[in-house]
Amino acid sequence: MAHTIRDIATALGAQAEGDLDLLVSRAAEPQAAGPGDLALAMDPKYAEGLAQGQARVALLWPGADWRALGLEAAIFAPRSRLAMAGLSRMMDAGPEIAPGIHPSAVIDPTAHIAPDAAIGPFVVIGAGATLGPRARIASHVSIAEGATLGSDAMILQGARIGARVTIGDRFICQPGAVIGADGFSFVTPERSGVEEIRATLGQREEIRQQSWTRIHSLGAVTIGDDVEVGANACIDRGTIRDTVVGSGTKLDNLVHLGHNVQVGRDCLLCGQVGVAGSSRIGDRVVLAGQCGVSDNIFVGDDVIAGGATKIFTNAPAGRVLLGYPAVKMETQVEINKALRRLPRLAATVAELQKIVSKL
Amino acid sequence: MAHTIRDIATALGAQAEGDLDLLVSRAAEPQAAGPGDLALAMDPKYAEGLAQGQARVALLWPGADWRALGLEAAIFAPRSRLAMAGLSRMMDAGPEIAPGIHPSAVIDPTAHIAPDAAIGPFVVIGAGATLGPRARIASHVSIAEGATLGSDAMILQGARIGARVTIGDRFICQPGAVIGADGFSFVTPERSGVEEIRATLGQREEIRQQSWTRIHSLGAVTIGDDVEVGANACIDRGTIRDTVVGSGTKLDNLVHLGHNVQVGRDCLLCGQVGVAGSSRIGDRVVLAGQCGVSDNIFVGDDVIAGGATKIFTNAPAGRVLLGYPAVKMETQVEINKALRRLPRLAATVAELQKIVSKL
Amino acid sequence: MAHTIRDIATALGAQAEGDLDLLVSRAAEPQAAGPGDLALAMDPKYAEGLAQGQARVALLWPGADWRALGLEAAIFAPRSRLAMAGLSRMMDAGPEIAPGIHPSAVIDPTAHIAPDAAIGPFVVIGAGATLGPRARIASHVSIAEGATLGSDAMILQGARIGARVTIGDRFICQPGAVIGADGFSFVTPERSGVEEIRATLGQREEIRQQSWTRIHSLGAVTIGDDVEVGANACIDRGTIRDTVVGSGTKLDNLVHLGHNVQVGRDCLLCGQVGVAGSSRIGDRVVLAGQCGVSDNIFVGDDVIAGGATKIFTNAPAGRVLLGYPAVKMETQVEINKALRRLPRLAATVAELQKIVSKL
Repeated sequence: MAHTIRDIATALGAQAEGDLDLLVSRAAEPQAAGPGDLALAMDPKYAEGLAQGQARVALLWPGADWRALGLEAAIFAPRSRLAMAGLSRMMDAGPEIAPGIHPSAVIDPTAHIAPDAAIGPFVVIGAGATLGPRARIASHVSIAEGATLGSDAMILQGARIGARVTIGDRFICQPGAVIGADGFSFVTPERSGVEEIRATLGQREEIRQQSWTRIHSLGAVTIGDDVEVGANACIDRGTIRDTVVGSGTKLDNLVHLGHNVQVGRDCLLCGQVGVAGSSRIGDRVVLAGQCGVSDNIFVGDDVIAGGATKIFTNAPAGRVLLGYPAVKMETQVEINKALRRLPRLAATVAELQKIVSKL
Repeated sequence: MAHTIRDIATALGAQAEGDLDLLVSRAAEPQAAGPGDLALAMDPKYAEGLAQGQARVALLWPGADWRALGLEAAIFAPRSRLAMAGLSRMMDAGPEIAPGIHPSAVIDPTAHIAPDAAIGPFVVIGAGATLGPRARIASHVSIAEGATLGSDAMILQGARIGARVTIGDRFICQPGAVIGADGFSFVTPERSGVEEIRATLGQREEIRQQSWTRIHSLGAVTIGDDVEVGANACIDRGTIRDTVVGSGTKLDNLVHLGHNVQVGRDCLLCGQVGVAGSSRIGDRVVLAGQCGVSDNIFVGDDVIAGGATKIFTNAPAGRVLLGYPAVKMETQVEINKALRRLPRLAATVAELQKIVSKL
Repeated sequence: MAHTIRDIATALGAQAEGDLDLLVSRAAEPQAAGPGDLALAMDPKYAEGLAQGQARVALLWPGADWRALGLEAAIFAPRSRLAMAGLSRMMDAGPEIAPGIHPSAVIDPTAHIAPDAAIGPFVVIGAGATLGPRARIASHVSIAEGATLGSDAMILQGARIGARVTIGDRFICQPGAVIGADGFSFVTPERSGVEEIRATLGQREEIRQQSWTRIHSLGAVTIGDDVEVGANACIDRGTIRDTVVGSGTKLDNLVHLGHNVQVGRDCLLCGQVGVAGSSRIGDRVVLAGQCGVSDNIFVGDDVIAGGATKIFTNAPAGRVLLGYPAVKMETQVEINKALRRLPRLAATVAELQKIVSKL
């Protein structure tokens, strides 16, 4: 679908110059842009790419001389990634899901489906489930009994929404995500080795045979508005109360949230992050890829953790963390420097010992 | 479904006092409990919550004065999580899967399906597959040719059971789990860089181009009784012999078991644990979230590893491990303390050097 | 299906001796081999197993005395895993997917399907999608609008191929893999805490509320020839250009490739590896299980990283890496040795301090 430069600039709240009636139907990297594309060149380093490509119009850095760059029009982006957000939203056709309900879908007669919902092939919707206005449900999705989704849900191929899960408006669920699997909660009749070493940090008295009895998950999952869940990510149900994900929070692919976990608002949990059972994550927390959070701890508001940080203990609000185990990022940076010199340090100490023993 | 206090106490093997004919239909946290709920207050710290809620009956810590807490009846739980196991089992309605075989299911005429099996929409069952009594198979599941499941299997939405996989009784499979994908096994015509650095721990003579030839997986997967596999977890088939998971073992979400892996009985492998090809895990091993086990090693019986422990070498029975690379947990705790002081230690050594050189 | 020893030896390019007309239909471990099996005993340590089993013919180490081992014929394997590749390929029946298109499949009339494709139950293929010759598509797979697959594709149960994804010949996709989910890309209207600490390595001026605006993914995924993707692995689409996986590269289960990532040719990315957005991986790179690669960095050709290595900065070609953060493997081995002695080193330094202060 084509847009005029004027319309795009208006949508982005951005300045534009030149022939504002030019139409573009696609965004492209500068060197790959054709004459009908909008080239993305929000930094002077892309000027050369523009010369190689065939773009007549570009999204440029503020102050760029668009005429000298050989363009016929330009939009100016003071914050380039923010401009990308607006532009990509305009240009995203979204998944093709035909309007109406595909005849192969199996929908319980007691489910409440908004009349304008689009439901693809082989979808299963259980008893009493609710789908709000403008829902788009791709093929192979299952939405179990009693689950409730707000307006504008987009649930992609093969995602699983479990029984009695409650989800707010504008939910985006990538393919294969599982929301509402049972929690991983088991107990031994007598005190287990795990319970013992948690108390002793490693000492065990006596090892005896033990097998595991299952604690069933009676709770569900409650998710706020404007949440996105990545491909093949997993959010387990709570044991009694619901597992909770706050509004505005985004989960990347293969993220794991254990039972009873509570994640606040506007968090980012990047690829392969894992949060163990019953931990609480505050608001605006950012956990980079492969971070881990132990069970039953609290990570305060605005905490940011670098890649693969493993958080074993409560983290105060605003703390910036790195490492295994997690410490303040600046401390970890110092430790890492010292670590690289550690073999040399050990040699120095051995040398000093020799000298001092002679003295 | 409602239960009397008497029935619940009997099922838990627990003491109860007060009006044992009271009916409850739901378990709830103390402050959220309504008059028809059983409040869960197995620790004195929940007494205040009880006062805020409306419960008439609760599961209490031993010795609690239930009348003073304003209750009409109480059950006493000496081991609270064990009581939760029994109680949650009674109250778990389980997934809604209609009795019989859904007309959309595609079942090979040579498959053996117990007459009381419940099979949901869009299930596919291959030639010669066997499903034991009381199997419950949710929507979108595939069970490939020659796979065998014992009694009381519960296979949830979209799980994949591969060809010739053998599984015991009471198997629980969470949504999206894949049992019996092909192993990740490749070989280069000549010695690869990986083979070289395994021998030299990092030295390489000469780097040459190489591409990978696939070793197909002819084995399958054998799983014992009372096993549970988490959402989107993956267990690969063996190359010649089967990959094995022993009875009573539980795998959490997103766990990965490579080809030929053997896991013993009554193990817990928590979220996102990975075990590389051909490694053996003993009985009653507990690996906390995000642990990793290298290929071709042995982890002895009763080993417990803390969160994100990476095990590169054989671990003797009963060892408690932590760290990357894994060492004894108490050693790692000492190392972690020393690490936080490492930058200071380096400064001290530099200072000593100066002093000693003056001497 | 049975093969003569002669045929197998020819297929492997290997020497054989004895009765070359003997037929075998299965490969087996030596002690488990029956009289119709080919025993796998490519190392003298398996001689004992051969004596326990009933094999009449075996794949043996070069120079083995097959008559003394009680065999009637033998094939000799100078490089045992390479022989396994050829042998397992011959003996792998592959998944049972009936020829033709299952009547339940929902295929858009504008899709281009090679006439010899085999398509299982409940498959969905979108508008304009292309499937090359000899494609085998197992049950529950979805191939979205405009996706293109070359010849000999094998797409296993429930895998998801996203819109406009382009894939070469001989692609193997294990169950549940998701190719072409949306990228995880969000921006705040004003500079975020993450942007700030990337610049300062941990310092934050002021913490303010922020919420995330989505950057949609307009790109797709381009995959070369001879690529394999593991179960429940995820490859995200690019923002503007495509995410790219080069020919000959193999991805294991639960691997995550973020948006815009470029992986070269003939790489191995083992179980649970994660590569964050916009990073580039060279050719013939091997990342062992649970490795992580930060966003926007470059990992050179022929890099090999040991288990759970976390790569935060550019890595030069040929480098062998280990650790968190990644350093040269030999450096990490030295660091690990020194770490185990670190508590003792600290005590030694304290002792030295005492002595020196007396001096």
